[in-house]
Amino acid sequence: MLSILPVRGVPEVRAGHDLAALVAARARLLDGDVVVVAQKVVSKAEGALAWPAPGEDRATARRRLAREQAVRVVADSPDALIVETRHGLVCANAGIDASNVPDGALLVLPEDPDGSARALRASLRRASGSDVAVVVADSFGRPWRTGMTDIAIGVAGLRPIRDERGSPDRQGAALEVTRTAVADELAAAADLVRRKADGVPVVVVRGFPYERDERAGADLLQRPPAEDLFRRGRGGVADALSGRAPAADAALDPRAPDRVDLDRVAAAARQVGGPGVQVSVGGGALFVTGGALDAGVAAGAAIAALADLGYAATRRAPQPGEQAATVVVRPGSNR
Amino acid sequence: MLSILPVRGVPEVRAGHDLAALVAARARLLDGDVVVVAQKVVSKAEGALAWPAPGEDRATARRRLAREQAVRVVADSPDALIVETRHGLVCANAGIDASNVPDGALLVLPEDPDGSARALRASLRRASGSDVAVVVADSFGRPWRTGMTDIAIGVAGLRPIRDERGSPDRQGAALEVTRTAVADELAAAADLVRRKADGVPVVVVRGFPYERDERAGADLLQRPPAEDLFRRGRGGVADALSGRAPAADAALDPRAPDRVDLDRVAAAARQVGGPGVQVSVGGGALFVTGGALDAGVAAGAAIAALADLGYAATRRAPQPGEQAATVVVRPGSNR
Repeated sequence: MLSILPVRGVPEVRAGHDLAALVAARARLLDGDVVVVAQKVVSKAEGALAWPAPGEDRATARRRLAREQAVRVVADSPDALIVETRHGLVCANAGIDASNVPDGALLVLPEDPDGSARALRASLRRASGSDVAVVVADSFGRPWRTGMTDIAIGVAGLRPIRDERGSPDRQGAALEVTRTAVADELAAAADLVRRKADGVPVVVVRGFPYERDERAGADLLQRPPAEDLFRRGRGGVADALSGRAPAADAALDPRAPDRVDLDRVAAAARQVGGPGVQVSVGGGALFVTGGALDAGVAAGAAIAALADLGYAATRRAPQPGEQAATVVVRPGSNR
Repeated sequence: MLSILPVRGVPEVRAGHDLAALVAARARLLDGDVVVVAQKVVSKAEGALAWPAPGEDRATARRRLAREQAVRVVADSPDALIVETRHGLVCANAGIDASNVPDGALLVLPEDPDGSARALRASLRRASGSDVAVVVADSFGRPWRTGMTDIAIGVAGLRPIRDERGSPDRQGAALEVTRTAVADELAAAADLVRRKADGVPVVVVRGFPYERDERAGADLLQRPPAEDLFRRGRGGVADALSGRAPAADAALDPRAPDRVDLDRVAAAARQVGGPGVQVSVGGGALFVTGGALDAGVAAGAAIAALADLGYAATRRAPQPGEQAATVVVRPGSNR
């Protein structure tokens, strides 16, 4: 049996507050407990605040700061700005909060959530005498599902992934893909005993037999870019142009995302250019010949497909009267 | 306090087994409990099986069946086939399982997971005398995170989303976006007390103050297509071509996904075509003039950008010697 215990009575946290002391005074922690702490109070205790510029409203300031703090814009619509943060998290508004923050400020993510978790774990050990694991939790949206769930953005003392690959199933056959993101499930479970408005930022999960790990962090929960099937354009336009099923077979080899399949792009461009067009591939370039307009159409489609795949592709300036177009791909330009 | 209680000793479930009786004989259920049941045993009890064709291995059969059962291929790579199922779920292999299934069979999703949840809830009421809610849980991957977490694919008796929009925050300001997918969090919490190989398909969550709802189902957890920022190509190539930040501003209005912003596509195409090219928009078409090769390049880029946005765009056949290209968008073709 597992118990999920809200820690009640934690006061409004301000910069410099000792979070471990606030928790230890209100909860009797036991060895093996997992202490799940909302990102908000971690950021508040660390003073991770930002302010709107003079005359700037909070929503505008949040969008501006999210862009500034992003390493990559993943999607941008009037309703949501989804970015990858420098921590590697993909989330709305770079995780910047505007509610439950006093004095008109905005709350940004901790500088190093795994470091915050490790520091809190050490402080809780001193304050309570107990050996606990710590999860820093934040509410994230999901691409295809409504509502948010809490996930782990920082972890200390436990292995965030439970790897059951290789265990036999009950028929003795090897289990296929079974890596469970237990740190995310711990964050979600903790979220069940609080509401955003009720001031229960700390929850204790008791009875979960986690694998101890002194070094693992929540970064293990981030999918490496080479395995990300939803990076912009992957397998998109080249397939759309070639009339294949939507997103059938990625044009980029997922195990070598730096190597674009120029033959695939050439085939797509040839189809758009029409029957009078020839497209050949060599030395990182596409050579297009045919009637000028048709060759141009094929070259333009190739440039677009390559751009969509994240490559910088340019057209070599044609000589006057030339009925050929050369599209040059800058090697490695998709990084 | 919330308790997560594994129901131990449930035998291997076969088609026609009475799941409610198996559970009620092994757990004392109380009014207000949430019974979280793994999809696997629901599918097994319902006999939701499929078999490989003669000579076909299980992995190949699974991929074939997943394609057959999909309403939309979302991503297809050598490592994963991500589809939208007829239920509206976006998941790998249409949720078809090949481990822990006897006799070489494959296990498919229940025909109607919300209906399965409702039926099980009614049976549990009869078998135990207690008024419980039911969640049917399955393990799903996530685009940007490693590992899987359990989510709710079927729900009966509780409202799957807790809507806190409109509640004041602790400073009295309106909370921004706070809709919590509690049914998904219940599924995740339940998953913490079992491993895939240990035969604990049923878990009781006790003490969660859910909102009763006799009609709501897990379909409420599915994001409507118009709000899906990660449908293929949305905001992709047109922005890449126009030199904006990756995916900055969607070219499609998310509130009217059927209306493509042709002006945005025209601006991108003009840039690719070069300074001698003019692109104008009217009546669902782009008109491109300029030197033949340049105009062709612009038209080809426009066709690619529109294809990437999911539109069928074609070139009107040019007259001999014509130095203009017309790109026609078929209205509504992105559906």
